[in-house]
Amino acid sequence: MFKQLQQDLEADHHIHFDNIKLLEEALTQANYINEHPGYTGNDYQRLEFLGDAVMQQSTAVYLFKRFPNWDEGRLTELRISMVQTRAFAALSRELHLDRYVQLGRGEELSGARNRDSLLEDLWEAFIGALFLDQGQETVMQFLEDIMFVKIDEGFYDQFIDYKSKLQEYLQRDGSVKITYNKLDEQAVSNNEQIFTVQVAVDNEPLATGTGKSTKDAEKRAARKAYQSLMND
Amino acid sequence: MFKQLQQDLEADHHIHFDNIKLLEEALTQANYINEHPGYTGNDYQRLEFLGDAVMQQSTAVYLFKRFPNWDEGRLTELRISMVQTRAFAALSRELHLDRYVQLGRGEELSGARNRDSLLEDLWEAFIGALFLDQGQETVMQFLEDIMFVKIDEGFYDQFIDYKSKLQEYLQRDGSVKITYNKLDEQAVSNNEQIFTVQVAVDNEPLATGTGKSTKDAEKRAARKAYQSLMND
Repeated sequence: MFKQLQQDLEADHHIHFDNIKLLEEALTQANYINEHPGYTGNDYQRLEFLGDAVMQQSTAVYLFKRFPNWDEGRLTELRISMVQTRAFAALSRELHLDRYVQLGRGEELSGARNRDSLLEDLWEAFIGALFLDQGQETVMQFLEDIMFVKIDEGFYDQFIDYKSKLQEYLQRDGSVKITYNKLDEQAVSNNEQIFTVQVAVDNEPLATGTGKSTKDAEKRAARKAYQSLMND
Repeated sequence: MFKQLQQDLEADHHIHFDNIKLLEEALTQANYINEHPGYTGNDYQRLEFLGDAVMQQSTAVYLFKRFPNWDEGRLTELRISMVQTRAFAALSRELHLDRYVQLGRGEELSGARNRDSLLEDLWEAFIGALFLDQGQETVMQFLEDIMFVKIDEGFYDQFIDYKSKLQEYLQRDGSVKITYNKLDEQAVSNNEQIFTVQVAVDNEPLATGTGKSTKDAEKRAARKAYQSLMND
């Protein structure tokens, strides 16, 4: 089974894994071992401890070098949106780690295989294993290809509450009036509409956003407004 | 001034720093820059962001390799006692970073130069600068010499509450009676006494500890009892 994963990692991500036992350890949960006395390795928890720290440093180093003009507040904010449960779970699914994990029967029945918190642990354990097997540079290259590239696609924006951030920023020196006004609403198919919303502060327009719900359109308007204010 | 620090680092710690501007950045606080318009660099905060993550990974990698038989709970516990304010402040003082930091006038007057929270930031910024200037391997070697060596000296034990840990462990399956009994009290000089305390669970002796106060002796007894139970 892990031979297949090893081959897929090579074919899809140019990741060569030497020690297949390490790959198996990263994908084996403690209760699986209790139920399989023949299994001789460890569970994934030590590798998770290691991978958690490797993810912190790799992400910090990348952001530090990529954004030389950002202050530590912006760097921290983006890092927090990247190094967290839902982002790691999405990466685990992208690598199909959910298909390979060896779980105890109880975890399997309770649906752990699709649970974000388990998939987060697996991602960290996988990165810990890759770090031991291939070293820091390979981890960094892999993360650039699969994870850091998503910064420019706006992938991590979904984990940031831009409406709160915009409000916090605009009210830093006292109360102001922030309004979201629907400018447009267009049917694009029988079941789908596109909304356009404008955000304004004290009746001064800041930015507009579009989305399939007014809530989505408001969030995008807030993000555009916040990011353009930050880049002034 | 930073030339002196550069020389001391070389002489005392075999650390060669190429870019002295980076060393200065690591030791310059934001308000100092506001008050010195001639200063052209950044304050230490970006380097602190970087160094914080480098400390996390370096410590995790070291502990993972050094203690191959420890589970992630023990690894995490030791890491937490190492990667924290008081430990980092002590390292900053050992390098005399407190003498070199360039502070704003307000911070100086409020005593920031001796404040643990500032010294923690400086340690992280210094490690961030060293990482950029000399790379991961030099950082790792330096941390082994100055920081990891203190594990065996028991330096980080002072940051762990062993009496609580022992109680938690002994009461994991229900209530037990834990007692600390003074066995001995000896005068070693006019102003100094040495106390010996025994810790027992349900009247079974577990370990003894000595110290200059009963509180100290109790803490040492708790540590010895806890560590020997963990190593069973």
